[in-house]
Amino acid sequence: MTELSITRLSSTQEDFDLQLEKLLAWESVSDVKVNQIVDDILSEVKQQGDAAVVTYTNRFDLTSADTMQELELSSEHLAQAFAGLPEVQRSALEKAAQRIRHYHEKQKSDSWQYTEEDGTMLGQKVTPLDRVGLYVPGGKAAYPSSVLMNAIPAKVAGVAEIIMVVPTPRGELNQLVLAAASLAGVDRVFTIGGAQAVAALAYGTETVPKVDKIVGPGNIFVATAKRAVFGAVGIDMIAGPSEILVVCDGQTDPDWVAMDLFSQAEHDEDAQPILVTPDAGFIDQVEESIRKLLPTMERKEIIEVSLRTRAALILVEDMQQALEISNRIAPEHLELSVEDPEVLLPLVRHAGAIFMGRHTAEALGDYCAGPNHVLPTSGTARFSSPLGVYDFQKRSSLIMFSADGASDIGGVASVLARGEGLTAHARSAEYRIKN
Amino acid sequence: MTELSITRLSSTQEDFDLQLEKLLAWESVSDVKVNQIVDDILSEVKQQGDAAVVTYTNRFDLTSADTMQELELSSEHLAQAFAGLPEVQRSALEKAAQRIRHYHEKQKSDSWQYTEEDGTMLGQKVTPLDRVGLYVPGGKAAYPSSVLMNAIPAKVAGVAEIIMVVPTPRGELNQLVLAAASLAGVDRVFTIGGAQAVAALAYGTETVPKVDKIVGPGNIFVATAKRAVFGAVGIDMIAGPSEILVVCDGQTDPDWVAMDLFSQAEHDEDAQPILVTPDAGFIDQVEESIRKLLPTMERKEIIEVSLRTRAALILVEDMQQALEISNRIAPEHLELSVEDPEVLLPLVRHAGAIFMGRHTAEALGDYCAGPNHVLPTSGTARFSSPLGVYDFQKRSSLIMFSADGASDIGGVASVLARGEGLTAHARSAEYRIKN
Repeated sequence: MTELSITRLSSTQEDFDLQLEKLLAWESVSDVKVNQIVDDILSEVKQQGDAAVVTYTNRFDLTSADTMQELELSSEHLAQAFAGLPEVQRSALEKAAQRIRHYHEKQKSDSWQYTEEDGTMLGQKVTPLDRVGLYVPGGKAAYPSSVLMNAIPAKVAGVAEIIMVVPTPRGELNQLVLAAASLAGVDRVFTIGGAQAVAALAYGTETVPKVDKIVGPGNIFVATAKRAVFGAVGIDMIAGPSEILVVCDGQTDPDWVAMDLFSQAEHDEDAQPILVTPDAGFIDQVEESIRKLLPTMERKEIIEVSLRTRAALILVEDMQQALEISNRIAPEHLELSVEDPEVLLPLVRHAGAIFMGRHTAEALGDYCAGPNHVLPTSGTARFSSPLGVYDFQKRSSLIMFSADGASDIGGVASVLARGEGLTAHARSAEYRIKN
Repeated sequence: MTELSITRLSSTQEDFDLQLEKLLAWESVSDVKVNQIVDDILSEVKQQGDAAVVTYTNRFDLTSADTMQELELSSEHLAQAFAGLPEVQRSALEKAAQRIRHYHEKQKSDSWQYTEEDGTMLGQKVTPLDRVGLYVPGGKAAYPSSVLMNAIPAKVAGVAEIIMVVPTPRGELNQLVLAAASLAGVDRVFTIGGAQAVAALAYGTETVPKVDKIVGPGNIFVATAKRAVFGAVGIDMIAGPSEILVVCDGQTDPDWVAMDLFSQAEHDEDAQPILVTPDAGFIDQVEESIRKLLPTMERKEIIEVSLRTRAALILVEDMQQALEISNRIAPEHLELSVEDPEVLLPLVRHAGAIFMGRHTAEALGDYCAGPNHVLPTSGTARFSSPLGVYDFQKRSSLIMFSADGASDIGGVASVLARGEGLTAHARSAEYRIKN
C-alpha cells in the first residue's frame, strides 16, 4: 500500500479550477453495442410477451423455467424469508423501515384549492400512481436497504401495487432482499432481471402487469433499457457512481473521516471520495489513517482503486471557501464534519443529502436515519432531489369557473388567443362571455 | 366538408378496447438522421462555443451575425416591446401574468425539519435552481403565453437567472413574445434556436451561461437535443401532440363543445380531440355543429386533418363509464362539461388539468386561469404533473445525529451494512457507538 497516491489539490494553486473540473469529469459511455442488444430485447418482449421474457431469463440467468408463472414468488415465500431471518437482522430491518416510513410521511402532498370572489375555484388534485415497478439487482449487489428505500415512499404515497423484479443468476435468491420486500409491502415479485425485466414492466406481458413508473438501480443494460422506455413509463434518475464530500474543520478523529471516505469508495472503483479542509496538517493525518486502515478492509482492492483514481484531498483557505467548492461539486453526500454545522447550513445550495456534525456518519443515512439513500449523483443535485413520496404522486390542475368568472376572464383569453392567431381558442372563450 | 368523417365508437361494441387503443396509439418517430445532425451540432457547440452557435444560427435562420454579442437582446429592448403594445394586449398580458403568479405561489414548498427525543434532527432543505434556460420557438409558433407559463413558476421558485433563447428566422422578431419576457422577468435573451441553442444552454459558451435546467417546447431538433443533454442538465417533459377529452352529459350547447374540440385541433394536425357522452343524440348534434362551424374557422385545414385522423366521438352507457375511459386515456386536458362536476371529480384519477363545468372552456386555462398550460401528454398524466414551481426547486435531505442518537442507531446500521457485505459502512457507523 506504500505506493498509494491520492490526489492533493489546493484552492490557491494556479490551475485549481481546471484540476477540480478534471477530477469531477464523469461521462457514462453510451455503448452502441449495448444499445442494440437492449433495443432487440425491448422489441421482442413487446411483441412476444412472457415467452420472450422466459427465454432471455433462462439464457442470461442460467435458469430453466418453462413458464412465466414459475418465475413469480408468492407472498408466503417472502413472508417466510422475513420470518426466517436471525432476530438481530429482523429487528434491524424493522427499525430501519419504521424510521424511513416516519420521515417519508412528512413528504406527502395533499390536494388544495381556493375560491375567488366570483365563485371561481382553482386548485390542484394530488393522486398516487396506480402501479410502480421496482428493479432490484441480483447477485452480489443485492441490497435489502434499496428495497426499503424505493418501496416505502411508494407505499406512503398510496401506490396501490408495487411489482418487484429481481434476477436470480443460477437460481441464487437473497433472503434479506425477499425479507425486505415482505416488510415494505411489495405486492408481487418476479425473479427476472436485465432489459427483459424492464421491458416486461414497461409494456406488460400476459403475466407481468404494465406499470406507470420504474424505479431502482441496475447495471448498464438496465439503465439503457430504462432510458429507452422513458416516456412510455416514468423512470427515476439514472445514477452515476456514488460520491461523498467531507467538509471538515480538522477537529474530527482522522480515522472517522478516513472510514467515511472508505464507505463510499467500497461501493465501486469509480466511486468518488473527497475531503475538503482548511487544515493542512489534517490532510496528512487523514492520509495516515487511510494508509493504516486500508489493509484491514475487506473490500480493500475496490477502495484502493477508487482512492487512487477518483479521490482528492483539497486544502482551502477557510470554511466559507470549502462551502463554495461544495456548491460547485453539488455532491450526492455532503458531510459537514464540524462543531457547529448549523452555522454552515445556509451556505449549502446544492447537495443530495447533508450529514451534519461529526457523529452523523454518511452510512447512517444509507440504512436507517430515515431520509432516502437514492440521491442525485454527478452534480445533478443542482437540479434534482432525493427519491421521495413526491416521485410517486402526481398532480392535476383544477379549474372551475363560475358563469361570472368565465364571462369576466373570457375577454382576456380572447385577446391573447387572437394575438397568437388561435381563433378557435378565442371563440371558445368568447362563447362564455355574457351579452 | 361534406366528406368529413369522424370516428365513432361505442363502449358496447365488441372490439371497443382494441379500437380505443388504436385511436390513442402515438409514437414519436426517432429519426436516425435527426439524431446524427443533432449530435454533430451538440459536439461542435461543446468544442467551439460561440463561434459554432453563430455559424449555425446564420445558416439555419438566414441571419448574418458576426459575433454572439449581436445575438443578445438588451432588457431595454424587451421593455420597449412591452411598452409598445396596444393597451388591450398589454393589460391582457398583465392580467394573465398576475393570475398565473398568484396560482403558482400556492405551489411553493418550504424547508422543514423535526427533532427527535434524543436531539437528532431530520428534515429537508428546499432551494431554487440557480439558473434556468427557457426555449421559445420562433416564427409562427411563437407563443407569448408559453413565456409566461414557463418563466413565472421559475421566478416564483426563486430562480436567480432565466436565460431565454428564441430563434428569429430571417430576423423576424415577435414583439408579443419579447413583451411577455419583459413582463415575466426573464433576465437575458439570445436570438438563437434549434439544437445549437440547447447546446449553448446545456454546456455554456463564452457568452451564453450554462444553465441547470432547460424548459420549453420546440421542434423535433430541439426535442432530440433536449433528450441528448438530459443528465448534464435537467429538462422538462418532451411533449407529444396536444389532446382534449370532453366528457359531457349532453346538456351543453353543442356549438360550445364543437369549438372546444376545435381549440385543440387547431394546434396541430396530430392533435387529438375526443368527446365522450352517454347521449347518442348529442353526438349527432355536436357533429352537426362541427360541420356548420368548421368552414368559418381560420385554421380549418389543420382542424379538418386532426378531426379526420385523430378525433373520436365515443358513446358510453353512463357517466361512471365515461370517467373510467377518461382514466384509461389519462388526457392532457379533461373537460367535465356537466351540471355538477364536483360529483365526478373523485372519480378522476389521471389527467393533466381538469376543466370543471360548462363555463370552463379549456382555452381559459391556456392563457389566464392561473394553472400552467404545460401539461403531460400522450397518457403520461398517469405518472407526471403540470409544469410547476416544484420543477424549479430541489430538495436536500438534512440529517443531524446527536451523539446519543448516533450511538443508538449505529448498531442498526452496522447489522444492515454487514448483511450487505459493506464493512466500511459498518465500521464508519460503529466508530460513533459509545463504549
